[in-house]
Amino acid sequence: MNVKIKWLRDKIKNMNMQGMIVSNPVNIKYLTNIDAEGILLLTRKENIYITDGRYIEHVQSTLTIDDEIIVTDIRSISQEDFENFFLFCENVGFEENYVTYAKYKEYMHKYKINSLVETENIIEKQRMIKDEKEIENIKKACEITDNCFTHILSYIKKGMTEKQVAEEIERYFKQNGADGLAFDTIVASGINSSMPHAIPTDKKIESGDIITIDFGCKYNGYCSDMTRTIFVDFVQDYIKPVYELVLKNQTKALRELRDGAISKNISKIVESDFNVNNYDLIHALGHSLGLEIHEMPTLSSRSEQILKENMIITDEPGIYIPGKFGVRIEDTLLITKNGAERLTKSNKDYIII
Amino acid sequence: MNVKIKWLRDKIKNMNMQGMIVSNPVNIKYLTNIDAEGILLLTRKENIYITDGRYIEHVQSTLTIDDEIIVTDIRSISQEDFENFFLFCENVGFEENYVTYAKYKEYMHKYKINSLVETENIIEKQRMIKDEKEIENIKKACEITDNCFTHILSYIKKGMTEKQVAEEIERYFKQNGADGLAFDTIVASGINSSMPHAIPTDKKIESGDIITIDFGCKYNGYCSDMTRTIFVDFVQDYIKPVYELVLKNQTKALRELRDGAISKNISKIVESDFNVNNYDLIHALGHSLGLEIHEMPTLSSRSEQILKENMIITDEPGIYIPGKFGVRIEDTLLITKNGAERLTKSNKDYIII
Repeated sequence: MNVKIKWLRDKIKNMNMQGMIVSNPVNIKYLTNIDAEGILLLTRKENIYITDGRYIEHVQSTLTIDDEIIVTDIRSISQEDFENFFLFCENVGFEENYVTYAKYKEYMHKYKINSLVETENIIEKQRMIKDEKEIENIKKACEITDNCFTHILSYIKKGMTEKQVAEEIERYFKQNGADGLAFDTIVASGINSSMPHAIPTDKKIESGDIITIDFGCKYNGYCSDMTRTIFVDFVQDYIKPVYELVLKNQTKALRELRDGAISKNISKIVESDFNVNNYDLIHALGHSLGLEIHEMPTLSSRSEQILKENMIITDEPGIYIPGKFGVRIEDTLLITKNGAERLTKSNKDYIII
Repeated sequence: MNVKIKWLRDKIKNMNMQGMIVSNPVNIKYLTNIDAEGILLLTRKENIYITDGRYIEHVQSTLTIDDEIIVTDIRSISQEDFENFFLFCENVGFEENYVTYAKYKEYMHKYKINSLVETENIIEKQRMIKDEKEIENIKKACEITDNCFTHILSYIKKGMTEKQVAEEIERYFKQNGADGLAFDTIVASGINSSMPHAIPTDKKIESGDIITIDFGCKYNGYCSDMTRTIFVDFVQDYIKPVYELVLKNQTKALRELRDGAISKNISKIVESDFNVNNYDLIHALGHSLGLEIHEMPTLSSRSEQILKENMIITDEPGIYIPGKFGVRIEDTLLITKNGAERLTKSNKDYIII
């Protein structure tokens, strides 16, 4: 049997569940490599993937006999079949953080399940520790991102719009081996940089601009994430203390991150130093990524999470002054026994184009 | 007050609810034009949008004083504030088809609500009937899509890969006024066309290929959707009866669609004719679209929905022969009093490139 499904079957057994309904497509992709609309049932005896006519052929071509997953067209399943899937199961797990309240009620009714129990992100928690192949994919996504940054530095010219720069990033990714974007690219220049989640506009890049570029790609389905804040022609004096404070803290967090470090402690180091300087850290210091751009754990002052070897996490402090400007610097990191390895390696000193 | 929120307040009042939590970001965008992460509360007296530091500035710049929406940073809200929002409310509505089971439990606890009640897609149902401005946006998205198709017919050359064609479609959209893609473009050639949801591959376009292109863009946030099945150099004889059967039924459905028509009846016309010819309609005949690419209602044999003036719906029958080929032809339509107006207007006769 597929090793990940074998792991999940053992796991739910230990939690006194005799079956599970896996609905989150990202979890299904993680477990089976299937990329389609459908639902995975672990019943007492079988693993069943229920999909529809649009996907049957594609799903069959993704799976091998070793997966031991039976693929079924939803149209061939009767109400009686649904009721039999979990017959004699005392507890059946479901993903309470993915399944809507309406679906939860539908599952209860359709499968005639008495006790549909919460599984508390068991699959998402397993996904926190990346295996060798996952790390390779993320490293490759980060490498493409670094190369894209080098390219974009020579590409940007005064008079271009933020949108043009964002489009060039996307074009570069697609033509250089990435599957596509990991998330919508942020290119925020001048006062637009004061919005952490700015959407690229038709504003033209001008002399004296600060530009925040937050971008990442996917490689074999796995994400990268990097932010650099760069300057056009020169660095305005009033920006320098902010840039240096952000960079100092980004580097400080990077030095503290390692197997055994506690999420909130790392975040508090940065928050305290920002506060001393009369700034706030208005978002989390970082987040994990993998098949999704935001995964568990989060690096924040509210998280008790202990970091472990082979977790992937971003380190991205930022300071934003409404109506003026913002600075954010971000790397994707791999947590190791003795520290954190930078997977995005682009320069973080003042970059003036 | 914003007219859409006014409408919603009246609506929930009639349903004996004294408040509502709107969580679905598409519904929030529809009601307020806000495009951010956050939650909209309709309390007895106020409309409150709760977001976080990353979005405050952007949200403030989207809203006008006439919206009568108070924007609040989640960090400034105490547990007591949360409990006061719905004080003395007997019933508070929530979106059971969007809110996860875990969030539902969190809302109950955080807002101390005794009766969190299902709102049965009230906002989604309102979104089914498009207003003048929405229709204008969809028309424009369809026009860009038609123009893109004309462009792509002269762009495709033998030896190009499916991926290259898909990338050119995306490039065209972005450079010709669209916000971006409405969904991932399908370019499926040769036997790949037998998968209704094929992902573009590195397969090269060859002489004799059939190519299914399913694509659409967004304009001011609103979607378009069109599919054409075209041919390289010549049409294989064994494909002709299938192409003609699909086209005949696409046209037949188009003639039957109008205000007052019943979804399942239209779908059954196509299904019957396919069955008589020993084929199955393996997916829905169509779906509505708007801010999202799939909206209510669906055009399928299981839907009792009566179509109404100013609904938007796709008409997209398809036949797929596993391992061989597939044919799908799709238009986006506007339902009118006396018929359906084609918003995508590209040619549907044999197109040979």
